[in-house]
Amino acid sequence: MTSKGGKYTTIHYQNYLQIDEILSAQKLRSEELGTPAHEEMLFVIVHQVYELWFKQIIHELESVIVFFQDKEVIESSLSVAIGRLKRVEKILKLLVEQIRIMETMTPLDFLDFRNYLFPASGFQSFQFRVIECLLGLPEAQRMTYFGQKFSSVFDENQQAYLDGIYATGTLLSEVNEWLERTPFLELDGFDFLSEYKAALKNMLAKETAAIDNSSYLSDKEKEMRKQMVGSTDTYFDAILNPETHQKLMQEGKKQLSYKATVAALFINLYREEPILQLPFQFVTCLIDIDNQLTNWRYRHAQMVLRMIGNKIGTGGSSGHDYLSKTTSKHQIYSDFHGISSLLIPRSELPDLPSGIRQQLNFHFNIQ
Amino acid sequence: MTSKGGKYTTIHYQNYLQIDEILSAQKLRSEELGTPAHEEMLFVIVHQVYELWFKQIIHELESVIVFFQDKEVIESSLSVAIGRLKRVEKILKLLVEQIRIMETMTPLDFLDFRNYLFPASGFQSFQFRVIECLLGLPEAQRMTYFGQKFSSVFDENQQAYLDGIYATGTLLSEVNEWLERTPFLELDGFDFLSEYKAALKNMLAKETAAIDNSSYLSDKEKEMRKQMVGSTDTYFDAILNPETHQKLMQEGKKQLSYKATVAALFINLYREEPILQLPFQFVTCLIDIDNQLTNWRYRHAQMVLRMIGNKIGTGGSSGHDYLSKTTSKHQIYSDFHGISSLLIPRSELPDLPSGIRQQLNFHFNIQ
Amino acid sequence: MTSKGGKYTTIHYQNYLQIDEILSAQKLRSEELGTPAHEEMLFVIVHQVYELWFKQIIHELESVIVFFQDKEVIESSLSVAIGRLKRVEKILKLLVEQIRIMETMTPLDFLDFRNYLFPASGFQSFQFRVIECLLGLPEAQRMTYFGQKFSSVFDENQQAYLDGIYATGTLLSEVNEWLERTPFLELDGFDFLSEYKAALKNMLAKETAAIDNSSYLSDKEKEMRKQMVGSTDTYFDAILNPETHQKLMQEGKKQLSYKATVAALFINLYREEPILQLPFQFVTCLIDIDNQLTNWRYRHAQMVLRMIGNKIGTGGSSGHDYLSKTTSKHQIYSDFHGISSLLIPRSELPDLPSGIRQQLNFHFNIQ
Amino acid sequence: MTSKGGKYTTIHYQNYLQIDEILSAQKLRSEELGTPAHEEMLFVIVHQVYELWFKQIIHELESVIVFFQDKEVIESSLSVAIGRLKRVEKILKLLVEQIRIMETMTPLDFLDFRNYLFPASGFQSFQFRVIECLLGLPEAQRMTYFGQKFSSVFDENQQAYLDGIYATGTLLSEVNEWLERTPFLELDGFDFLSEYKAALKNMLAKETAAIDNSSYLSDKEKEMRKQMVGSTDTYFDAILNPETHQKLMQEGKKQLSYKATVAALFINLYREEPILQLPFQFVTCLIDIDNQLTNWRYRHAQMVLRMIGNKIGTGGSSGHDYLSKTTSKHQIYSDFHGISSLLIPRSELPDLPSGIRQQLNFHFNIQ
Repeated sequence: MTSKGGKYTTIHYQNYLQIDEILSAQKLRSEELGTPAHEEMLFVIVHQVYELWFKQIIHELESVIVFFQDKEVIESSLSVAIGRLKRVEKILKLLVEQIRIMETMTPLDFLDFRNYLFPASGFQSFQFRVIECLLGLPEAQRMTYFGQKFSSVFDENQQAYLDGIYATGTLLSEVNEWLERTPFLELDGFDFLSEYKAALKNMLAKETAAIDNSSYLSDKEKEMRKQMVGSTDTYFDAILNPETHQKLMQEGKKQLSYKATVAALFINLYREEPILQLPFQFVTCLIDIDNQLTNWRYRHAQMVLRMIGNKIGTGGSSGHDYLSKTTSKHQIYSDFHGISSLLIPRSELPDLPSGIRQQLNFHFNIQ
Repeated sequence: MTSKGGKYTTIHYQNYLQIDEILSAQKLRSEELGTPAHEEMLFVIVHQVYELWFKQIIHELESVIVFFQDKEVIESSLSVAIGRLKRVEKILKLLVEQIRIMETMTPLDFLDFRNYLFPASGFQSFQFRVIECLLGLPEAQRMTYFGQKFSSVFDENQQAYLDGIYATGTLLSEVNEWLERTPFLELDGFDFLSEYKAALKNMLAKETAAIDNSSYLSDKEKEMRKQMVGSTDTYFDAILNPETHQKLMQEGKKQLSYKATVAALFINLYREEPILQLPFQFVTCLIDIDNQLTNWRYRHAQMVLRMIGNKIGTGGSSGHDYLSKTTSKHQIYSDFHGISSLLIPRSELPDLPSGIRQQLNFHFNIQ
Repeated sequence: MTSKGGKYTTIHYQNYLQIDEILSAQKLRSEELGTPAHEEMLFVIVHQVYELWFKQIIHELESVIVFFQDKEVIESSLSVAIGRLKRVEKILKLLVEQIRIMETMTPLDFLDFRNYLFPASGFQSFQFRVIECLLGLPEAQRMTYFGQKFSSVFDENQQAYLDGIYATGTLLSEVNEWLERTPFLELDGFDFLSEYKAALKNMLAKETAAIDNSSYLSDKEKEMRKQMVGSTDTYFDAILNPETHQKLMQEGKKQLSYKATVAALFINLYREEPILQLPFQFVTCLIDIDNQLTNWRYRHAQMVLRMIGNKIGTGGSSGHDYLSKTTSKHQIYSDFHGISSLLIPRSELPDLPSGIRQQLNFHFNIQ
Repeated sequence: MTSKGGKYTTIHYQNYLQIDEILSAQKLRSEELGTPAHEEMLFVIVHQVYELWFKQIIHELESVIVFFQDKEVIESSLSVAIGRLKRVEKILKLLVEQIRIMETMTPLDFLDFRNYLFPASGFQSFQFRVIECLLGLPEAQRMTYFGQKFSSVFDENQQAYLDGIYATGTLLSEVNEWLERTPFLELDGFDFLSEYKAALKNMLAKETAAIDNSSYLSDKEKEMRKQMVGSTDTYFDAILNPETHQKLMQEGKKQLSYKATVAALFINLYREEPILQLPFQFVTCLIDIDNQLTNWRYRHAQMVLRMIGNKIGTGGSSGHDYLSKTTSKHQIYSDFHGISSLLIPRSELPDLPSGIRQQLNFHFNIQ
């Protein structure tokens, strides 16, 4: 049905895109075994499409990591990096949509060929693990798999490749270093952290007083309202107290260093200063990617539940249960989500000294 | 800016749709308090749009329940019911998409007016509770809310309304009764359940023997493979043994009666018989709706985490934690998901006697 | 980076899905030419994903056509056919979404490697043409391409393959024949067409009289309102008058035969009768697929405009202009859309004689 | 069913969001007339949701226009403006998705109440016209409506409001002025336009020579390839020759002034310079919004065709035909799309003098 690629003397859609190679790679087990199952084609193609998109995601992530390994992330790189991470996010969103197509296969249809696939499993997708490693999913945080390291299903070269990613630097570790280099936290006599602490205490005191003095709130409501406002003992402790942060890191509950966390907070609070706009966009991209990946895990687990109920998967995995757990445990950039708890309203924000403001602006005054 | 509705003598877009009433219902607290926050408009409109769609969903669900309360669900009603449930699913899918718009509001923007909203909370959406009740979310399964019944935030009339839904019949309870009335399970000497049991045991024996006799599987792999096949002691016990089912119902782990569950299994297995095609579509719609609703809960929890971190919500709720838990606990039609574990491949399916086959077909022979 | 497929003695994700073959098929021209362009990878992968999905669509369409070639489309086949066409629709919807990913490549990025691709062109996708042929796009309706037949860019085998599809039967031609076999149009003394004509004339007369007698409508409004109601001279002429239909077919403005059109109208009007529910769903699927395909063409043209402006495409095609025109010209099932103009409200529908009603129902009376 | 808003002494979801007002605004004509049509509710709610989102879009667009009216668009405003336009784009995307819900209503269902709506029409949505005006749709470009000005269906106040938007400044006119103020086009002895012209001619000459000297291209292919490269007589004429541009403006074929067009080209070509990154993002947002709006128009026309065929709409409009035509004619930012035709590859781009480069950079050197 398809033409031999060799016939074309000039570049042609068919040979440029290697269509023949791509379209001859669907070997259906049910056909090999003499009991063709119509639905197996969908199963194969859905997974092949996933792998093609995984390759694209890896292409983008690797290129972004290289920018940050330069140690001098110039502004134009940051802009390109943002564009590429936004693309990754859009691809992940498409992969979530794609689950709806897999869901057109009913459980009964799947039974027509499910046994033939044993013991292959989606757990064996190497590229998916590469993506997790490139993003920086910490090994300690990973679910074990029948008591074994996640990478034990791969061959030695593949295992070495995965280890190599952690060794040369993940997106998370590179971003951490980049944040630590943020120059504005102590500049020209301005000390961001102590200004922030003062503003925070002032804000909490004002709000608490307002609640206490309120005449229309019941005591119970006052209590709740105060919880909502928070106190320096709860969310704020880790940012006010480097030791607390250090402890949480040791327990594997935080990944970003203290210094990087403070920088991320600074970027969030002063995001409208010209020089901080792109860094803020970049940090937002990381959260978006994390959300989409988590969303995909969630929908994937939901689909597996629908497909095989609580049965054990083709790879012997506990199927839905395992996948469900990775949804929350394999979140990578939760430290960036955590920044939300630390924000204070713009009205309470310490003013930047005009010297600093100028530093954060463009050389050329546009107006 | 908008015209007085009174001016139109004939029916006009503006008065037919009551545009003035709709567009004058955005009263921003931040404006009332003299500190206008641009982003509050989005907050208000997003929620109002939710409520409009909720009204539509209620309109559809109520109409479908009425069909089933007739006790004689005629075929044309079933077809219409499917259409309406598919619409509900599409609306829920749109509500999931809509979260992306809310996510364009950053945490810092939200802080500009968040305090003004206290103690209002999305927890107070009455229509959302009506939807949960209409679908049939069992009270026992519900999360408590600060130790109180979920409906305690509503006034008496509203509480009575919610109780009334359970009293007159939810979609779940009506569907349960309708399934129990399925006439084909024992007909003309055909006993579905015993045929199924025999087929199941036969299948399990064949598969287990094949695994045991395999020469290329290791012992460990044989063990795994047998777990995947399952045994009559695990997933299948509840369907083979009415007492087990009864026990699970009493523990609140199952909602569908034993008889209804058997009927749902029958419909799933013989879905291609003409008379069972629409019932199968209908049951699939219930799963789709459940999935979309669960998906919405999940994405909503994800958004709240992004917005306020792990802080306490405006209603004093634990915010992200509470929402996260409802995602799994508030699943309503999990019994229909569970059917997947009970399916056997078409090749193992007991043949229906020709007498039954004819009963399941149309009166007029189309060919 | 990927493991040799040969290492696995049992079936493994990597060899089952032929991951190595799939992932080694991205040969970037810009790299071959020594000027690597980061964005070319996206270009290649996006198109390969398209081709994989095209293969799946062809897999589904071919299987559905086979059902209809049996001449005795049994009900269970119809149910399966609907499921497969719904899947095709969902895949097409995903392909529309996928355009958003291609749009993350900016025009300037594309320029980095665009010249290298000449003269390859998306116009050379063989599978896309196969899909158009399988659906039944009439040759007469096709845009010419630089004055040549659309298939002139393919080799002889491919051209013969495309011609063969028309010869053995497209989905459109098979559906046409199936509709012509609809048995209920003249049955037991009921003549659908004359009943419909009478109901139509009666309805038009009633509505026209109501308008004429209205006291609050101006003369101009009366005129407009009458136009909206329609007359037997306009939309209805083709259905009331077989000669008009014949003429439109000869002009290539209609594809469905007169008899098939009448049957499609009957199915639309009496869709709630049990035996007509699946035929109605099936016909609706055809419209859905047509809409999604048209929608994809439209979005594709929009993307090309954004990418290269009004410049000429790599294949020498007029790019955006050509694609724009196919959007409206390459609509395949417009005759089914046209049915909408012929519908009359349920309140005006001729009652079916009880003899017919029974014929349209199930053998077994469910109640 | 809903509680009286008056009962709440503190702020409550129900009164804050004015739920009662919103949910009591669905008055169904079919009910008033004693023949309730289930589907009319969907019709009303879909349109009310549209209007709520329109209000949000207007809220965003007005705020962005205000930024630009300041004449000194400071960088932080630009960043906020981009965020708001991206939100508008996301809302428009949701409105496109929403059409799928309207499509769950079948043509026959619509007939149950369609006549009751006459002569109301979506053409009478005032807010939709406000959006078109705010974006800057030129009056000359508009479709006439039965030979009358589009705004003739509105009352005097509304017409004045629409005229006022053009008078005080649309997004298009404000952006045009802002682009004209771009300071870098002639700076420190660098003249962008003449550098660009030289680079363009050089590039065209090189490419044409390469084609002519090619040994493997046929004469016909050489011709096609040269057309693809373009010449200074075609796409490039308007940018090289201000008189041509002026003529196109007078013919209504271009909206952006010559000076603004040159600035937009400069921003596109040097988008990676720090100071140009946000302007480039901003211009891209305009294209995105235009595309989504056009996409919505297209899908809306497609839905109307499906719903009523080619019949005349409730407002007496030609329905599908009218809507189809607006899809292409009501494109607003086509001048920005046109920039794509003018781009030259990065490898051909004139280097900026280091003086200029520094001006385009941040004051603080981040590294």
